[in-house]
Amino acid sequence: MKINPPFVEKVLCAFIKEELSKFHYSRGIIGLSGGLDSSVCAFLAAKALGPKNVIGLILPYKKTFREDVRDARSVARRLGIRSRLIDISPMVDTYFSRFPARDKIRIGNKMARERMSILYDFSAKEKALILGTSNKTELLIGYGTIHGDTACAINPLGDLYKTQVRELAAHLGVPERILAKKPTAGLWPGQTDEGEIGLSYEEIDQILFQLVDDRQPPEAVIAAGFSRESVEKILSLIRNSEFKRKMPPIAKISSRTIGHDFLYPYDRNR
Amino acid sequence: MKINPPFVEKVLCAFIKEELSKFHYSRGIIGLSGGLDSSVCAFLAAKALGPKNVIGLILPYKKTFREDVRDARSVARRLGIRSRLIDISPMVDTYFSRFPARDKIRIGNKMARERMSILYDFSAKEKALILGTSNKTELLIGYGTIHGDTACAINPLGDLYKTQVRELAAHLGVPERILAKKPTAGLWPGQTDEGEIGLSYEEIDQILFQLVDDRQPPEAVIAAGFSRESVEKILSLIRNSEFKRKMPPIAKISSRTIGHDFLYPYDRNR
Repeated sequence: MKINPPFVEKVLCAFIKEELSKFHYSRGIIGLSGGLDSSVCAFLAAKALGPKNVIGLILPYKKTFREDVRDARSVARRLGIRSRLIDISPMVDTYFSRFPARDKIRIGNKMARERMSILYDFSAKEKALILGTSNKTELLIGYGTIHGDTACAINPLGDLYKTQVRELAAHLGVPERILAKKPTAGLWPGQTDEGEIGLSYEEIDQILFQLVDDRQPPEAVIAAGFSRESVEKILSLIRNSEFKRKMPPIAKISSRTIGHDFLYPYDRNR
Repeated sequence: MKINPPFVEKVLCAFIKEELSKFHYSRGIIGLSGGLDSSVCAFLAAKALGPKNVIGLILPYKKTFREDVRDARSVARRLGIRSRLIDISPMVDTYFSRFPARDKIRIGNKMARERMSILYDFSAKEKALILGTSNKTELLIGYGTIHGDTACAINPLGDLYKTQVRELAAHLGVPERILAKKPTAGLWPGQTDEGEIGLSYEEIDQILFQLVDDRQPPEAVIAAGFSRESVEKILSLIRNSEFKRKMPPIAKISSRTIGHDFLYPYDRNR
C-alpha cells in the first residue's frame, strides 16, 4: 500500500501531458469540489500543463457546501489556474419540479450528470480535456455515478486508493484543511462516504488491496483480521459495480464486434 | 454484409433477456426517437421481454420534429408498450440562457446528455435497464454523443450496420414510414446523417465492412472502387472516435489496475 509520492507525482504528470498531447490538446479542465481528489488532480495538472492551461469548474448546488466552494476557490487561487463557479440548481430544480423525487440517490445522480454535462460543454467550448478525479477505491466499490462524476477523458487518479491519494496530497502541498476533511460525495449535508459505506477508508483500502492487488482469496483476508461481513460487503460492492467499469455489452453478430474483437490500438499513430 | 434476419432476431432477443436477467432486471427502457434504430430496439424488446416490461421515453426538444414524435408514439401503441413524453427544453434552455452558444454541436450534445440523464433517472425510478440504440456504423465512425445517446446498460444493435438494421426492421414489421425516413441525429431541422457525413450509408457501411470485418488494408478498399478521399475520411473518423468506444485511460501505478489488468469476469456468478 505504501507509495513513493515523488515518483507517483512524476508518473502522473507525465501521464497527463502525454495523454493530452495524443489527443492534440494542451489544456485540461477539472470539476473542483473542494475535496481531496479534485484538489490533488488540480495540483498535478497545474504542474504537468502549467497553471494557464488548467481550468477549474466549481459546480455547487445552490448555497450548500459553502466551505467546500471556498476551499475549491482557494485551490484555484493558490495554483493560479482559472476557475469559474456555476450553480447547477436551476437545471436540476427544473427537472425535479416536474418529476418530484424523494430518493436522495436519484437526486444526487441527476446532479452528478448535470455537472458532467456542463464539464463536457466547457470542454468543447474551451478546447480542454476533462481530467477525471475518481480514485481506485471509488472505482472498485462503485461509489460514483455512471455518466456523472466517473465520466472523463483521462483519469490520473484511478490507480490510487483513497488513502494513497491523501499521502500524495500531503507531498504536493494540498492545504491542511482539505487533507483533514471527511470524504463526502456531497449528496446531502452531513453525508460522509465512510458513514454511508459503513467502513473506514483505512479498512476498505486494506481489504481491497489484499483482494485486488495481492489476489488473496476472501478467506485469507478474513484470516488476516477483517470480519467476514466486511470482506463480503466489499466483494459484493466490487461485483455489483462492474457495469460502471466497462463499456456496455454489445450483442455479437458479426466476425468483428466493438468491444469483443475490434479493439483499435489506443496509441496508434495519429 | 448480408444478414439472416430471423436468426439475428433470435440472437438479439436472447441477448436482451439474458443480459437483463444477469442484472436481475425484468424490464427495459428505451429512448424512442421515432427513427429506425430505436424503433427496431423497441420491437426486439417487446418480443424478448413482453410489451408490459418495456417503457419508451419520448424526449423531444419543444415542438421540433413533430412527425418523429408521432412515429414514436405509433410504435409504442403498435407494440402495446408504455410510453411517456417529456419535453427536454426547460432544462436545456435554462442552461443555454446562462451560457448562450451558437455551436449546433454543443447544443445537440447538451440535449443528448439531458436525454441520457432523464433515461437513467427513469431507469432507477422504474427499475428498468436502458437498452441502447447505437448501431455499428455510428459507433465506428463516432456519430453519437459520449455520455449521451451512446450511454446504455446493454446494446443489442451495436454489431449491426445501419443498412443491416434496416433489413432487420423490414423483417420485424417496423412501419414503412419509419423505414423510408432519412436518418437524422435530430440536432436541427433538415439535418440528415448522410448530408453531414458527406457519404451515403450504403457507401459508409461497405467501406467499414471491408476495413473492419474483412480486415482489408485501405489500398484494397480503394482498389475495390471507393475513392481515396472517402476511405481516408472513414479511417480518420474511426481513429478520432476511438475514445468514445473505450473507458477513459487510467494512469498505471500499481500491480493491478482497472482497465489494464483488473478485468473482472463479466459473467461471474452473481
